[in-house]
Amino acid sequence: MNLEQILPADIEKRSFEIITEELGSRILDPENEAVIKRVIHTTADFDYADNLTFSPHAVTKGLEALRLGTPIITDTNMGKAGINKTALHKTGSEVYCFMADEDVAKAAREAGTTRATASMDKAAALSSQGKDCIFAIGNAPTALIRIKELVDQGKLHPKLIIAVPVGFVNVVQAKELILDLDIPYIVARGRKGGSNVAAAICNALLYQLYI
Amino acid sequence: MNLEQILPADIEKRSFEIITEELGSRILDPENEAVIKRVIHTTADFDYADNLTFSPHAVTKGLEALRLGTPIITDTNMGKAGINKTALHKTGSEVYCFMADEDVAKAAREAGTTRATASMDKAAALSSQGKDCIFAIGNAPTALIRIKELVDQGKLHPKLIIAVPVGFVNVVQAKELILDLDIPYIVARGRKGGSNVAAAICNALLYQLYI
Repeated sequence: MNLEQILPADIEKRSFEIITEELGSRILDPENEAVIKRVIHTTADFDYADNLTFSPHAVTKGLEALRLGTPIITDTNMGKAGINKTALHKTGSEVYCFMADEDVAKAAREAGTTRATASMDKAAALSSQGKDCIFAIGNAPTALIRIKELVDQGKLHPKLIIAVPVGFVNVVQAKELILDLDIPYIVARGRKGGSNVAAAICNALLYQLYI
Repeated sequence: MNLEQILPADIEKRSFEIITEELGSRILDPENEAVIKRVIHTTADFDYADNLTFSPHAVTKGLEALRLGTPIITDTNMGKAGINKTALHKTGSEVYCFMADEDVAKAAREAGTTRATASMDKAAALSSQGKDCIFAIGNAPTALIRIKELVDQGKLHPKLIIAVPVGFVNVVQAKELILDLDIPYIVARGRKGGSNVAAAICNALLYQLYI
């Protein structure tokens, strides 16, 4: 079958060696390296070595927040499903996705807005109870637009915004909005991203804490 | 904010128009077009116009199977989460992921194999009860290797194999194995793919039935 005889546990290690090799002489910021390489590992797409943009010490700040059990909010159940729960729960953190919640659907209907927007409002309510959060947004540009508004209004104080929606309409611009905020961010500039990328970034942080 | 004023419902339509425009003069097989474009929509990666490989009338055969309520088996909960349940349930179909099942973990431990391998054995048991299935494999090359073995042994008769794991070790070769089978397949050749791609292909099929 021409398949390498390699233990599953070693496949990830070998994969990261290949990624390192193919990045060649390119110098990555050591603080951001694990995140960048895990996203490449998740997508087999080296474009992320260029796309991923980090505010100063976003990774360190994200790690601090996770160490304190700061909850993660996603904008898809797919992103939620992709986060390693064993690693997450060791931090005392939890991941929430409000997109399928009845009250979110109702609020969106009544306000004539998207469920992603209403989900961010629900996160802000959570936040105002003293639970600041980490956003991992891989799908909905409207989620990012609402986060920006809520931060500007002083209603939301995220510890980290992972802003990596994928898409062709409004996505590039919505991600650029996050770059203007005085909040730690990890943004995939351009069209690329996705719920898998959002989850991979969360996992890259979690694995630095516990694996 | 320099964002187009466009209703969320229209964003997908506009996105597909942009994809069509950027594909330019490239001719896609009309039968496969919706699948290819939805994968590009999910990843913003036009490489899939080249990578995706279809056995003759794989799409038509997949649609027939879904219309009959054939269950889908994924190799990640993330892939399962990404499949549109509203569209799926209209077909009478269901999606299963056995990766986190206790009996699968036990079987893998006892056999010294991967949970992905043991998951495929569980799917074969389901299959032998008369329920043939569609595989949507976006992560584990060992799942594909086991599917190939089970098909060769006459223990599995999938209606369609969506073989799109992503990765750097054994992934390319495992996907090539599927090309040798006399079973309908949709394969993302090369390193790229993922659970999001697997889910996108399932959704592209489901949306042709009901949307």
